[in-house]
Amino acid sequence: MQVEPDVFAKDCPSRQLLDRIGDAWSVLIVGSLSGGSLRYTELAQRVPGVSPKMLTQTLRGLERDGLVTRTVHAVVPPRVDYGLTSLGCSLLGLVGALKEWAEQHIGDVVEAREAYDSRTAVKV
Amino acid sequence: MQVEPDVFAKDCPSRQLLDRIGDAWSVLIVGSLSGGSLRYTELAQRVPGVSPKMLTQTLRGLERDGLVTRTVHAVVPPRVDYGLTSLGCSLLGLVGALKEWAEQHIGDVVEAREAYDSRTAVKV
Repeated sequence: MQVEPDVFAKDCPSRQLLDRIGDAWSVLIVGSLSGGSLRYTELAQRVPGVSPKMLTQTLRGLERDGLVTRTVHAVVPPRVDYGLTSLGCSLLGLVGALKEWAEQHIGDVVEAREAYDSRTAVKV
Repeated sequence: MQVEPDVFAKDCPSRQLLDRIGDAWSVLIVGSLSGGSLRYTELAQRVPGVSPKMLTQTLRGLERDGLVTRTVHAVVPPRVDYGLTSLGCSLLGLVGALKEWAEQHIGDVVEAREAYDSRTAVKV
């Protein structure tokens, strides 16, 4: 019997996938590759603030999950391109929607945080 | 001059919002509240595997971000309900899409991981 994946089920692996999709660096990297393959240094420029360690680690995770391809070109010096697989492309709609929601609602969230912090501040 | 939020900008607060939306526990909790308010113990049952510490911490973060309301009823013993704000409701479409993508593609991702691990395994 095939059990349907269910993110609400404690041991369903689809639950961990939520973290991958939701990881901000993954979202930014997948979004950056929406226009086509990029070299490592180009990617680093598209995602300002990402450390080399974090970029390498996130790319490796995305490659392992089958979302990103890594192509090494046999030239001197060697060139490495990163691009989206078709599975990676299937994420683009979601990535765009996440970006849009975050940009559209950040003002409300910042306001809510300030209100919360002033309510819960220790009264002296 | 008003600067447009941009998740790709290094210091834009909308970037951190991506992590909130993408946090798996946040997604599961917001999804659980889609049918209406729930008590803490009911929420814990809807999200199996969440520890009390993680549930409390995630709810506090969601409340601070203005996505969830916490209502204390003056009864004995005190009853605390959690529900979505209208901002929280605006996330439901995305949360549903995240859940659907994860459940639909987990098979492909697991396959990709196995292929990656066998390619990169140390040859003895």
